Amino acid sequence: MKTSLGARPMAFPLPAFLVGTYDANDRPNIMTAAWGGVAASDPPALSVSIQPSRWTHGAILKNKAFTVSIPDSRLAAAVDYAGLVSGRNHDKFAACGLTAARGEKVKAPYVAECPVVIECELYNSLEVGSHTLFVGVILEVKAEEGIEFKNGRLDMAGVDPILYNIGGEYHRVGEPVGQGFSIGKKFKA
Amino acid sequence: MKTSLGARPMAFPLPAFLVGTYDANDRPNIMTAAWGGVAASDPPALSVSIQPSRWTHGAILKNKAFTVSIPDSRLAAAVDYAGLVSGRNHDKFAACGLTAARGEKVKAPYVAECPVVIECELYNSLEVGSHTLFVGVILEVKAEEGIEFKNGRLDMAGVDPILYNIGGEYHRVGEPVGQGFSIGKKFKA
Repeated sequence: MKTSLGARPMAFPLPAFLVGTYDANDRPNIMTAAWGGVAASDPPALSVSIQPSRWTHGAILKNKAFTVSIPDSRLAAAVDYAGLVSGRNHDKFAACGLTAARGEKVKAPYVAECPVVIECELYNSLEVGSHTLFVGVILEVKAEEGIEFKNGRLDMAGVDPILYNIGGEYHRVGEPVGQGFSIGKKFKA
Repeated sequence: MKTSLGARPMAFPLPAFLVGTYDANDRPNIMTAAWGGVAASDPPALSVSIQPSRWTHGAILKNKAFTVSIPDSRLAAAVDYAGLVSGRNHDKFAACGLTAARGEKVKAPYVAECPVVIECELYNSLEVGSHTLFVGVILEVKAEEGIEFKNGRLDMAGVDPILYNIGGEYHRVGEPVGQGFSIGKKFKA
C-alpha cells in the first residue's frame, strides 16, 4: 500500500553538483544544484536547473558556459555553504578555502579540490516554471589522478561522491549491488 | 593534478529510474533511464532523456504522460533487465514478476513494488542530439506505507534507492555525512 505525498519535487538519488561560473565582474563563483543530470549521450550533455534570481543564472547566459564539479564526501560542508549564500555578495571559494581553476575548454571555473570536473558550453535552455533548465554540451571531463578509470568506468569509491536528500541530508555512496548489463540477464527468456 | 577523460557523458550520482508508460497497444512497459533528474520546483517537474528509437519514446508522445518509479536495492536485477530488452517485443513486468499499477493522475503505469513512484504529465521537450529530453510536471508522488516522511523528507534508508555508475555498476546509498542548510554555516562570516 502506498501513501500520497501530493505533488512535490522529489527523486532518488539527487546529485549535489557545484555549478561554476565567472560572474559579470569575472569573479569565479559556485552554487550548489540538486536539480540536474545527464541530458544526452551524443553530444554528451548535462542539464542543470537554476532559478532566474540566482547569481549563477546571469553568469551562464553571459559566458554561455558553466562547469559542474563533483564534490566528494570531505567537501560536504562547502557544498552546503555554496547553497546557503549568494555569489552576488560572497566569495564562496575564499570562504571555503577552495581553489578556482579556469576551465580548459570553456570560460568557467571549476573546483580544483573536486575529484571530477565537467566543462560545459551552453547548448540550449528551457523555461520550466520556477527554473531555467540549462543544457550544456560536455566538452571535457577531468578526474583526479589516482582514481581508477577502466572500461569507461571511473571507480565509484575513488570518486566518493555525495548525494542529496530533499529536506537536507547528504549521503555517501554505499556498497555495489551488482553489475549492469549482467545481473538482469537472468530474466531473459 | 587531473587527467583528461575527454568529452563523454558522465556525472555522479546518476539515478536508475524506471520510466513507465502504456504503449501503442495500451500494454504497460518500463525502461531504465539514468539520464534524468528534477527539472523545477514550481511546478514540480522531472526530466528524463530518451532516444527516439526507444519504445518508450513513442508511448510518452502518445499519452503525454509517464511515471518514474524509484527502485530499491532488491530490484537491481529487474532494473538491469528493463534496460537490456525492448518493450516492443518483451513484457518486462511479467518477465520480472512486477506489478503494473495504473497511475491515479495520469495515463501511465508504475511499478507497485517500488518504494516511491512519481506520476508526470508531459510538459515540454527539447531535442538534445541523440536524446529527447522530456520534462514532465509531477502531479503525484506516492511512497510505500511505513517509510518515514517528516519535514518534507522521506527517510533515505527506508527508500533504499540505487544509483548507477557509467560502465554498469549499481550501488546502494551509504551513510549520512551531514545535515543540509546546517553544516555549511561554519563558513559563514
